[in-house]
Amino acid sequence: MVSRKSLPVIDTAACCAPMVAEALSPEGATELARAFKVLGDPVRLRVLSLIAARNGGEVCVCEITDAFDLTGPTISYHLRQLRESGLVDCERRGTWVYYWIVPGRLAGLSQFLDPSDAAEEMS
Amino acid sequence: MVSRKSLPVIDTAACCAPMVAEALSPEGATELARAFKVLGDPVRLRVLSLIAARNGGEVCVCEITDAFDLTGPTISYHLRQLRESGLVDCERRGTWVYYWIVPGRLAGLSQFLDPSDAAEEMS
Repeated sequence: MVSRKSLPVIDTAACCAPMVAEALSPEGATELARAFKVLGDPVRLRVLSLIAARNGGEVCVCEITDAFDLTGPTISYHLRQLRESGLVDCERRGTWVYYWIVPGRLAGLSQFLDPSDAAEEMS
Repeated sequence: MVSRKSLPVIDTAACCAPMVAEALSPEGATELARAFKVLGDPVRLRVLSLIAARNGGEVCVCEITDAFDLTGPTISYHLRQLRESGLVDCERRGTWVYYWIVPGRLAGLSQFLDPSDAAEEMS
C-alpha cells in the first residue's frame, strides 16, 4: 500500500451543487478550480481517460508508462497530481502500483458542470 | 454585437464520448484540456457560475464587474477566456455586453466526466 499520509485531504463531499442551481462560493471555487486545473493538461487527461476506460477496473502503472512516450518520473508526476486531487486512487501490490478512478469525485465535477436544469428552463 | 472574427473556432461537437466508454485520443485531449484549463481558475469559475446561476438568462458585464473586487480589464480577460473556450457567449446592446452560458458546451464537458457507466459496472 502506498503511503497516503503525505497527501492533503480532499473534501469531495463538500463540493458542489450544480452551478446552474446556485453561484459558487469563493471556497468552493478554489477547491473545484484545483481539480479542473489538474484536468487542464492533455497528458494528464489521457492518463485519467486510460484508467477510466477500464470501467471501474484497475490499471497497472507499467501499462500506463507503456502507453505514453514519456519517462517514468513524468508519468509518476501526472499520476500524483491526479491522486492528490482525488480523481484516482492506487495501491501497491508487489512490484507494481495499480490505479483506479474515484467515481464519486468524477461524478461531483460532472454534476457541477451539468446545465440540464438551465436547459429545461430555456426549452 | 461583439466581433467574433478574431476568436478561434471551437469544434465542441467533435469532443467527446464519456471517458469511461473509451480512452481519449491525443487530439480530443488537447481540445478538452484547454477547456478544463480555463475552468482551472477560481475567479473564472465564479464568473462562469454567476452567469450559469441565471439559469439560461443573461448577465450584464456591469453586474459581473460589481460582484468582484477586481478591475474591469481583469474581468474582461477572464470573460474572454471563457468565451474563447466556448463556455459562454455574449452580445453588445447599447453600453453593455451581456453574457450567457452555452449549455451544449457545459453538457459535453459534464458528459465526458460522467462515471455513471463505470459505476453501474462496479455496483
